[in-house]
Formats: sequence, C-alpha cells, structure tokens
Amino acid sequence: MLSNQLHNGLETAKLLWSRIPNSEDGEVDGGSLLRNSNGNTVESLDYEVIENYAYREEQAQRGKLYVGYYVAVKWFLALLTGIGTGLAAVFINISVENFAGWKFALTFSIIQRSYFAGFVIYVLINLILVFSSVYIVTHFAPAAAGSGIPEIKGYLNGLDIHGILLFRTLIGKIFGSIGSVGGGLALGKEGPLVHTGACIASLLGQGGSSKYHLSSRWLQVFKSDRDRRDLVTCGCAAGVAAAFRAPVGGVLFALEEVTSWWRSQLMWRVFFTSAIVAVVVRTAMGWCKSGKCGHFGSGGFIIWDTSDGQEDYSFEELLPMAVIGVIGGLLGALFNQLTFHITYWRRNYLHKKGNRVKIIEACLISVITSAISFGLPLLRKCNPCPESDHDSGIECPRPPGMYGNYVNFYCGKDKEYNDLATIFFNTQDDAIRNLFSAKTIHEFSAQSLLTFLVMFYTLAVVTFGTAVPAGQFVPGIMIGSTYGRLVGMFVVNFYKNLNVEEGTYALLGAASFLGGSMRMTVSLCVIMVEITNNLKLLPLIMLVLLISKAVGDAFNEGFYEQQARLKGIALLESRPKYQMRNMMAKEVCRNQKVVSFPRIVKVADAVSILQSNLHNGFPVIDHVRNGETLVIGLVLRSHLLVLLQSKVDFQHSPLPCDPAGVSKSISEFVKPVSSKGISIEDIHLSSDDLEMYIDLAPVLNPSPYVVPEDMSLTKVYNLFRQLGLRHIFVVPRASRVVGMITREDLLIEDSEDPASVELHSTSGASSI
Amino acid sequence: MLSNQLHNGLETAKLLWSRIPNSEDGEVDGGSLLRNSNGNTVESLDYEVIENYAYREEQAQRGKLYVGYYVAVKWFLALLTGIGTGLAAVFINISVENFAGWKFALTFSIIQRSYFAGFVIYVLINLILVFSSVYIVTHFAPAAAGSGIPEIKGYLNGLDIHGILLFRTLIGKIFGSIGSVGGGLALGKEGPLVHTGACIASLLGQGGSSKYHLSSRWLQVFKSDRDRRDLVTCGCAAGVAAAFRAPVGGVLFALEEVTSWWRSQLMWRVFFTSAIVAVVVRTAMGWCKSGKCGHFGSGGFIIWDTSDGQEDYSFEELLPMAVIGVIGGLLGALFNQLTFHITYWRRNYLHKKGNRVKIIEACLISVITSAISFGLPLLRKCNPCPESDHDSGIECPRPPGMYGNYVNFYCGKDKEYNDLATIFFNTQDDAIRNLFSAKTIHEFSAQSLLTFLVMFYTLAVVTFGTAVPAGQFVPGIMIGSTYGRLVGMFVVNFYKNLNVEEGTYALLGAASFLGGSMRMTVSLCVIMVEITNNLKLLPLIMLVLLISKAVGDAFNEGFYEQQARLKGIALLESRPKYQMRNMMAKEVCRNQKVVSFPRIVKVADAVSILQSNLHNGFPVIDHVRNGETLVIGLVLRSHLLVLLQSKVDFQHSPLPCDPAGVSKSISEFVKPVSSKGISIEDIHLSSDDLEMYIDLAPVLNPSPYVVPEDMSLTKVYNLFRQLGLRHIFVVPRASRVVGMITREDLLIEDSEDPASVELHSTSGASSI
Repeated sequence: MLSNQLHNGLETAKLLWSRIPNSEDGEVDGGSLLRNSNGNTVESLDYEVIENYAYREEQAQRGKLYVGYYVAVKWFLALLTGIGTGLAAVFINISVENFAGWKFALTFSIIQRSYFAGFVIYVLINLILVFSSVYIVTHFAPAAAGSGIPEIKGYLNGLDIHGILLFRTLIGKIFGSIGSVGGGLALGKEGPLVHTGACIASLLGQGGSSKYHLSSRWLQVFKSDRDRRDLVTCGCAAGVAAAFRAPVGGVLFALEEVTSWWRSQLMWRVFFTSAIVAVVVRTAMGWCKSGKCGHFGSGGFIIWDTSDGQEDYSFEELLPMAVIGVIGGLLGALFNQLTFHITYWRRNYLHKKGNRVKIIEACLISVITSAISFGLPLLRKCNPCPESDHDSGIECPRPPGMYGNYVNFYCGKDKEYNDLATIFFNTQDDAIRNLFSAKTIHEFSAQSLLTFLVMFYTLAVVTFGTAVPAGQFVPGIMIGSTYGRLVGMFVVNFYKNLNVEEGTYALLGAASFLGGSMRMTVSLCVIMVEITNNLKLLPLIMLVLLISKAVGDAFNEGFYEQQARLKGIALLESRPKYQMRNMMAKEVCRNQKVVSFPRIVKVADAVSILQSNLHNGFPVIDHVRNGETLVIGLVLRSHLLVLLQSKVDFQHSPLPCDPAGVSKSISEFVKPVSSKGISIEDIHLSSDDLEMYIDLAPVLNPSPYVVPEDMSLTKVYNLFRQLGLRHIFVVPRASRVVGMITREDLLIEDSEDPASVELHSTSGASSI
Repeated sequence: MLSNQLHNGLETAKLLWSRIPNSEDGEVDGGSLLRNSNGNTVESLDYEVIENYAYREEQAQRGKLYVGYYVAVKWFLALLTGIGTGLAAVFINISVENFAGWKFALTFSIIQRSYFAGFVIYVLINLILVFSSVYIVTHFAPAAAGSGIPEIKGYLNGLDIHGILLFRTLIGKIFGSIGSVGGGLALGKEGPLVHTGACIASLLGQGGSSKYHLSSRWLQVFKSDRDRRDLVTCGCAAGVAAAFRAPVGGVLFALEEVTSWWRSQLMWRVFFTSAIVAVVVRTAMGWCKSGKCGHFGSGGFIIWDTSDGQEDYSFEELLPMAVIGVIGGLLGALFNQLTFHITYWRRNYLHKKGNRVKIIEACLISVITSAISFGLPLLRKCNPCPESDHDSGIECPRPPGMYGNYVNFYCGKDKEYNDLATIFFNTQDDAIRNLFSAKTIHEFSAQSLLTFLVMFYTLAVVTFGTAVPAGQFVPGIMIGSTYGRLVGMFVVNFYKNLNVEEGTYALLGAASFLGGSMRMTVSLCVIMVEITNNLKLLPLIMLVLLISKAVGDAFNEGFYEQQARLKGIALLESRPKYQMRNMMAKEVCRNQKVVSFPRIVKVADAVSILQSNLHNGFPVIDHVRNGETLVIGLVLRSHLLVLLQSKVDFQHSPLPCDPAGVSKSISEFVKPVSSKGISIEDIHLSSDDLEMYIDLAPVLNPSPYVVPEDMSLTKVYNLFRQLGLRHIFVVPRASRVVGMITREDLLIEDSEDPASVELHSTSGASSI
C-alpha cells in the first residue's frame, strides 16, 4: 500500500520522532494562541500524560547509569522543592509574626498614653506594609497578585498563563504576602504559599532562572513538559503542607483540587515532598522555640490545637451542626458571587486605569481595615473577667505584650477585657485560636460576634482582588468560626446539660464556610483535622462539609473555578459538556480550513503556509503510487520553525532524504518554560534558501490519534481530555478493519529489560 | 459517500444505540472469555468510564423528576452501603470479641485447676471455630476464602471473577471471618471486611439478590455497569472505614489501591459513604459501652489510642527509625515471596485434592497455632511486676477476666506476669494494644519478642492461603510492632537520656511492615494515623513508609499484585509495558482472523458466525453504491444473542428495516452482574427463522474508537486503558483529514439545560 520510498521515509520518521523529547503523542509544545475575552494571551502548552517512551528510549541508549541519574535527579528535585517551600513558609511566617507582633506591641504601649496616637501609629504601620506589598506587586511582579491557585490549576490543566512561574513572581509573592498579611488586611498567606511552592518547583524543574543567572546545567535533565508539571504538582502539595503544617492534606489538595491528570506513580513523590516539608517546618519551629526568631514562636504558624476540647457529641447536636452546614453553604456561595462580581468590575474598569489606581485602592482598603479593627472595639463596652480557672491556663486579661485570649483594650478596670478587640484587634492566627478555644464559654457576646462577622465578611469580599497576594483560607476560617461560635453559643444556652464547647462549633463553622466557598471535600477535611490536631471531630467535619458543599453547589461554582473563568483560564473539565451528546466530531471543525503539508515541501511554500495562519499542527499528506493520497502524520509549527531556522536539513532535490543524513539533535526541539519560542517573523531566509526543499518525514509524528468524522463529540472529548492531547485528526470512516484489539491482546508479559525494571521498581509502579 | 439507504440506517443506529444502556463506547458487556493459566474462567466485563450520555438522554426523556429520582437513589444506595457495612463490621466485631473473650475467660478459669485441661479446652474451642469457618467456606461460599482484595481489584479493573460478589459469598465472608479470627488464627478481619463492603454494595447496586428473593424492584435503576462499579468502590472504602474506624483512610485506600478508573466526582460519594460508616460504628460502640454486647466494648474494634505516648522526637532517633524502615522492607518483601510460593503450591497441588484436604489443613494449622500460643508462654519464666505507677492506670497483673497488659500466666507468685503470654496468649487487638502501649518500658524481654516474631511470622505465612477468610493487616501490624518494639528497646538502652517510648517504635514498625508488604503509601499512612489517633507521628510514619516501600520494591511486587497474578487476575496496569514501545498496533492482531458482519445478515449466517468463534465484538461492514466497503460500526455478541433470542426484529427481506418498526426496549440489553448471560447454545431457531434476515444498523455502535495500523502500541495501550475500552478497531491509514480538533474546539460553553444543571450541581462536578 505504501510505496517503498514512502515506507522508508516513515521508518525514518519513527526513528527520529522517537528521539524527540515529549513527542509521544506528537507535540512538543502546542502553543496555540488563544486570545480570550479579557485580551490576555493564554498560551496552550503541550501536556502529555502518556508514557514518554521516546525519552526512555534515549535514556536506554545512554545506558543504565543515566537512568539512575535521571531518577535520582527527579527525587532530588522533589527534595529541594520540599526544603525550599518549607524554608519559604518559615521565612514568611517569621516575618509576618514579627511585623505584626511588633506592630501590636508598639500600639499597645502607645495607647497607655493616648488612644489617638496609638491609632495613628497603627494605621501608619499597616499602610506602610500594604503599600510595600502593592508596590512590589504592581511594579515588579504583576503575576503575584491574588491567590495564584486558579492560575496553577490552569497551568496543570495544560495552559500557560504568562509569567506565573517566573523567578520575579516568586520573589513578589513572598515579599508581597509578608506585606499584605503583616499589614492586617482581611486575607491569608496560604494560597500564596501554594503558588510559592509551585514557582520554586518550576524553577528547579527548568534548572534555575536563566534570566537571573541562577541556572545550573546539571539540573537541566527535565526535557519533558510532563516532568516539569509533575514537579509543580509536588510544589503545590508542598505549599499546602507548609501553609497548614498538613502534609497529608497537601497531597490530597494536589490530587483533588489542582491537578488535571493524576497518575498513581506521582502520589508517591508528592507524598515524599510533603513529608520533607513537615520535617523542615518542624525543625525550624523547634529552633525558634528558644526565642531566636523574635515574636515568632509564641504565636503564629497555623496549628490550632483543639485536642483538649469537646470529646464527644450527642445526637441532639447533629441538628445545630447541620444548620452550620447550611449557613456555610449559603454564605460561601454568596461570597463566591460577590467576589466574582467585584473582581469582574475591578478587572474591566478599575484596574484598567493603571498601577496608580491599584496602589491607591489597596492603601484605601488598608486604612479602612485599620480604622474598623481599631475603632469598632472602642465602641464596645468591656466585660469583667470570668472567675479565673487555673486549670485551663488562660489568664484574664492576658499579660501585656503576650498573645492570647481576653485582650484588655479601652477598658476602665484592670480585670476587664474587650471581647471584640480579642478577635478584631489581633493577628488572624490568634483571633482564630481564641475563637476555637475550649473552656472559654461566654467569652464572646453574640453582639460582638455578629458585628465582627458582618464587618469582616465585607472586608474580605472587598479586599480580595486588590493587587496584593491574597489567600482565602484564613479569612474563610475567620468568617466560618465566627458564625460557628454564634451557633455554639445558642447550643450552650439551649441544651444546658450537654458537655458542649463553643470552640468545637467554631471549628465546624470554619469547615462549613470553606466547604461552601471552595467546594473541596476530602482534602479540606484532612486539612481541618490536621490543623486542629483533633481526629475525633472527623465525622462531624465530614457531615458539615457534605451539607455546605451541597448547598453551595446549588447556587454557583466553586471559588477557584469562578476566579479561573474570570481570568480567562478556560479549564478543560473532566466531564464533557451536556450538549456534546448531540454533536459529531465533524461539526466542531466544520468551519475550519484544513491546511496540510506535502511530505516534501518547498521552503518558500512552508514559510508562506506558516505566515498565512496561526495553526500549531498540520497534517502531512503524501501521494502514493496509484495517485491516491495518504495521511502520513502530523507536523508541528514549532518543529517546522526549528527546521527553518537551523537550515541544516534543507536539500536541493524534491526527493526523500537519506535517513542517515538527518542530524537533528534532540534538545533543539525543547522549548524552555518561560520563553516564548521562535516566531515565523524571527526567521530570515535568503532567496536561495527559499528555493530549497525540506523532507518532513523525519520530524513528523507518524501516528496521531484519529477519530471518524461522525463520532459523538462526547467520545472525542473523552479521548482528548483523558489522554491530554493537543490535536486529533478527524478522518473519514475506514473502508476495512485490519484487526481488533481487546484486553487480551494488551496483556503482554514483562520482559526482563534492565532499564524497565529499574524504572519500574524505583517509581513505584508496582503499587498501582 | 454513503448511500441514502445506508445513511438512514446509520441515523437509526445512532438513535437506537443511544437508547441502549452502557452503550456509550459501544459495549454493554464485553464478556470475552479468557482462559487463564490456572484454568479458571475469568470473564471480562465492560467497564465504561466515559460519560454515559445515552442513559442520560433516556433520563432526559423521562423528565427532570426521573433524574432527581436517579440521583437520589444513587446517594440512597451509598447511604445503605455505609449503614450495611458499618453494621456488618459491628456484628463481626461483637461476635469475634465475644467468642474470643468467652474462650479466654473459660481457659483462664480452668487453668486455675489444671493447665492440661485448660489447654485441651483452648485447642478444642479454637478448632471448632476454625472448622466452622472452613466448612462454611468450602461447602457454601468458596469465593469467600482469602482476603478478597485482589479479586475486588480485578473486578474494578474490568474483570469479573465468578462468584466474588454473590450473596452467599457475603454470608460466607461474614461468618467465615468470625470463625477464623475468633479461632485465633494468625490472620485478620480487615481484608474480608473490604470484601464484605464490596459485596453489600454490589448486591444493593443490582437491587438485591434475585436468587434468594431478596430483590427490590424500585432499587433496580442501575442499568449501567459503571454505576454498579462506582457503588462497589464506595463499598471498599466503607469496608476499610469500618475495619479501622478510619474514614479518610478508607477513601484513600479506595483511591490508591483498589480502583482503576477514578473520577473526582466519585470521591464525593465515597467520602459520604465513609462518613456514614463512621457514624454507624460510633453509635453502635456507644450503645455497647454500657455492657449490652458482652465482652465487646471493653476490648475490641481497632483503635489503638497512642495519643498519650511520645510527644517529640530528636534527630538521633531518625537513624533507628530508618533501620525499622529497612527491616520492614526486607521482612515485607520476604513475606510476599514466601506467601507467593506457598499459595502457588497450595493452588496447584494441595487444594486440587478436594475440600476434605482443605478442611484438614485448616484444622491442623488451628491446632498448631493453639499449641504454640499456649505452649510457648509456658516455657517462659515470669517476671516480677514493675513498681506500680498509679498515674498510668495500668495494673500488674491485670485483674482476672479483664483485657489488658501484664498477663499472669503460669507464674509462681501473684505479683508476676508472663511477657510472652501478654502478646501470644491474647486476642490480636489486645496484643497490639500492649505492644503499642506507652509508659511500659521493659515490659517485654528481647527474647520473648524475638520468639514471638519468629513464630508469628511463620504462622502468618503458613496460614495465609488456607480456605478461610483472611486479612493481612492485623498480622502485619503484629509482626511489625514486634520488631519495632525490639528496636525501641535498643534505643531506650542506647540513648538513655531521651524521652523515648517503645510503643512509638512499635507503631513505626507496624507501618514499616505494612509498607514493605502491601506497598501502599498515602492511604496506609492515614490509616495508621487514624487507628492510633496520633497526628504527631505523621512525618515519622511517612519517613518509615518511604524507606520500607522503596526497599520492598527493590525485591518484588506488592502483596495484592502478587496474589492477583497467582489467581490469574490479569490486571491492566496504568502504564504500558516497556516493550510496547517497539510494537505497532497491527502486530498484536497479526494472527487474528477478523470476522465481520454485513449490515443485513441472514439469521443462519449469524448463528454460524457466532458458533464458529468466541469473539465478543464484530465489525459491521457495508457496501456502498460504487462497490466500496465501509466500516459502519461494531456489534456485540451479547446484543446479537438478544436479537436472536427475541426474534422480534427478524424480517423477510434483505433490505434495510424501517426505523420506526424497531422496538427493542432498552432494559433487554442489560445483563445482571451475577448471571452468565445467554449463550449461543441456548438459542433454538426453527428452519424458517434461519431463512430470515436481521438489520444490524439499529443495534450497532456506529463509532467505536479506531487506531491506524502502524500506531505505536504504547499509544494504543494508553487509549485503551485510559478510556476503559473493550474493543478498538485497527484500520488502515486515512486518505485525507476532514478536520482537526484542538483544545479551543472543545471549549463549548454550558447551555442552561435543566437536566444537565441538575446533574452538574448534585454530582459535584463543579469542584473538579
């Protein structure tokens, strides 16, 4: 059926193609330019999920030693990612706690003399911190604004949003979140830490940042996009593990929320990274315990141990807990809706006016936040301290300069405390610790909690979307634990004979709000258990999450999905859309003009084809002896550009080339993550060059996936999504069936190839 | 290109095909008969992962109410699965604890007078329990033998091993494991509980067992295989959650170890089932606390609370912990190897000799186990009790008839205890509790631990594979915690100044052995944390697991994989094999004879084709006007058999049928899980019937997945495995490309179809 000539060419193609990295399913980098509704250029990246056998083959050629080296580097990079993310988390936390601690200490010492002077100082310190944050973000690292999780999700779904994984973004994220969190805004540092972890992983994966001369040659073994993405997944898990000191939660977060193509083999490495983070963070905290890190160590670094709280629950309590779930669902969905609209307005109106507006906005919000958190507690009457209970170890009022419960603020007497100041005029970590605290029944009045809930909810909605790094976890926990504690107070009053702790309800409230807003299930549950160190509440947390997520889902999408949509990050969901059922493959490409290449193309023709359209992949059609045509493969724009630029493979005759003469080295086809690759405008050819020919056989992908033209789009979608493809050919129905492949045909026993055994055993494939 | 006639036929095909349940990718039940090396018939089942839109369409036709009903039933069945599994677990535990408690109480009361009489009674009770277990299994439910996890893995991988999910298997599993665990054999009840959960789920999924008239019509809405498999996945998670009271561990176990095609949407329902189990188990235990359940309540039902143990660890301890990891890897790998060889020998020699041999074998092992566990402690000298520490609440010796530490057995004085009897002559749960116990330094002598380790290891190896339900978790924990405690003893002696608890090392040892044998990572880690209720050891458990798994992987496969292979369960792994790189699609079907059907086939021809081979799917080829042929789809053997049996669609003329006349109802094509379906021998046709024709267009799958003949087998494998297919057509290269589908083409915005919104919001697709 194939002419001999063609056949030779195809053999060459197979030979060479298998030597090009990432070429398993035909594409090194799709790079299709999507211009989305917001005018951002979102570049599609190649994501190949399937086994990169081409690369393995290359390894096998280089010998077993190289395979070992490659595997070792993979694990070493995971180790480095863990260490790096852990250190970054420690650094952020030490800085935030020190800034905040110093701020509160100074304010408290000044208000002994003048409340007005204290207020001014407090506002100014916050303003300076927020200003530094917004300045860094706007002038140095614009991609560091926001939480970063939607962008990372997009990246792992196969999109490359420009700038999110650069070295400058990393720096901006770290210092920006120190400013914004230290400056007392209603946002958290956890989302940014996930982004930080991802940045560290990505930089390590490409062997450092070449722009800042921090690259290392011997780390650059990751030629495939998949390896880099796997490392970024590790980085995300490390970020969560570091943010919450929740290693298992980190693994599950990466699995449930972030990645699009999960492989069981990867779990093992993600797990390792998380374990490393846990060790690093624990070591650093042990080191800081002796007071070497200033204010850090006494408070700070999320872990709200509630293990001395409620031990048991009775069936009557399930009703108020269900109520918490419903409230969480409603408030969470409302939160998503409000932030969606405000962010939409910001993106399309406010932030178009330039950096100055962004800075003014953030500073304004900072001043308002400071004023509210300082001013509202002033209006509140102080309560007398409860009778001291020495067993609980809680002092009232707390000693000056310390963290803890029962803040004495604007009180007439010494033995009084201000309940609103205890949660509002405090670091967020401490406020949450106070809300979660057991054995402090009647500490807060319903009025204070309600005031705080309304004000903080509003602040959180308004603050999200300003040009500073901003996470939504801690604000969510604040909001949730406030109404949770409110419900708990009613339960305490209503079921008088039960051993109920308000702190438990606060914890359930926190879970419910996060469930209602972010719609995570298992990972959130594990994170809540890990940060409160209390396994006994697990079934209750599960119950509350189930309810709040179900209620939230009745209204809108999850927080990250909405934000991703706003940013024009079009995620390919794991399910096909409903209306695809009634569509056929040929319908979606009805308006397309298929531009194809002949096998041997004149350079001038190639250039003009590339100039005339923006397609990233082209079918290659050849004529066989009897005049019929035959689709022989797919060639990528990027590969063509490399060929045109290098000029090495140009030939004078329009005849198939000699396979032996083809000399493309593999690494030439690899595109660095943070560069844009070559464009057709960059290539300048002389008129002599234009008269020459190129044989495409060596560089084409000889067998891209194909679907018949009348296949249901649902099936096409599944093929595309499950295999992480970039291009599918739609072809006419076949005229005959050569064979049929069933389960039995694919059950081939392992041969004892040493390289495969090596890979098999070290990558843990045997546990799948 | 298509003749009009054909075109009409294909339209009909699409219409009807879309109404056949499970037909999304073309097959209701593949049912390919694989005769494996052990002579068992393993039947392949259809597993369709992709969206069952055909079924949805039917739902849409029946209206929104039905969709709501369908979703509600899905969740209701998950609820029932959770409740059922929870109750089964409680029942098993109450029975085991009561039998064992009664047995030990009786023995202890008799040995006050005569040790020999006590020994005889002890042996006899164990023998009776084990005999009842092996009798039930051999005569009533042969599929209930062993752990069941490899079989469930196989089922969820797309294979149907006959009998594993029947009602009788469920009953056999429950009562069998009561006998075998209560009878003191060296095996656990956790694996069987996973199988129990899966059986309950499967029975609920098909609406009860029709054979025992326990079916309910209104539950039979699950027409698709996928829904049933999803429910079985829930059942597995429920089993683990019930076995260990570890709900999150259950979810992760289902994810990591059991399922082959995980969808994020499913996680939500699995999570729900686990939460229900946790609530059921907790309620039952609360009810039993007051002594209503006999011996159960004081001991029993795994949760070895170690939260009062070691709080902290120092860096010097990492070395002995790493040593534990290495030992775990070595002993685990050895365990797998030994059980593999012994099970192989059993299957091929011993168990071929019939049920009598199986019963004798189990009884013999029971007697040996009893003799060792009674006899060895007799040889051991008693130790004097340590000075009593009232704070720890541990009495020495323990009061008669109680569970706990410091068993007084064959001791001269009152204030003495026998350390070997404390672990050997005890229920496994209590033995583990004692090994894990903190504040009991120097309780065990190294000699006793070593003796126990060797004897119990041997017993566990020999016992696994007898014809009783047998889990490997608890024996693994026993073995691991013994050498862990041994290492801990050396650490206590060596690092004298550290606050080290031997119990912590026992726990790490348990984790290391399970990691070295089963090679799970995240799920095992979470299970260990949940059963010990101690989050602080998480990083240490992670570390130990990492090491033991890596060491184990260097030697052999995981326990379940090896057992699955022995049983001829050929799992399609998630990675293609190494040598597939160099193969092409057409190579694997080189020796196949493709048997195809014409569109309109004579009944006699159809029968003879079906009789002449065992293929389960056939290409349908039609001739178009200009004499060319065209592949118009795939028809399944099972559908043909239904057509032949019903005779309704027979027609006299060899011309395409009238689409309106086709009247197959959908449910006729569904095969119940536990039946074998129709065979060609069951169909009897008159000679008049044989002269008639059938038009296959209405029942064929018009667009099965196709691959070009020279595609790399790696890519074919990925397509097959990722999409959970049953048949792929290998076709010649296409002559032209109709269009090209890229990411942008598939980003279609949601239409506001009410049914889709409904499904979308309730099934949690928005959180993916």
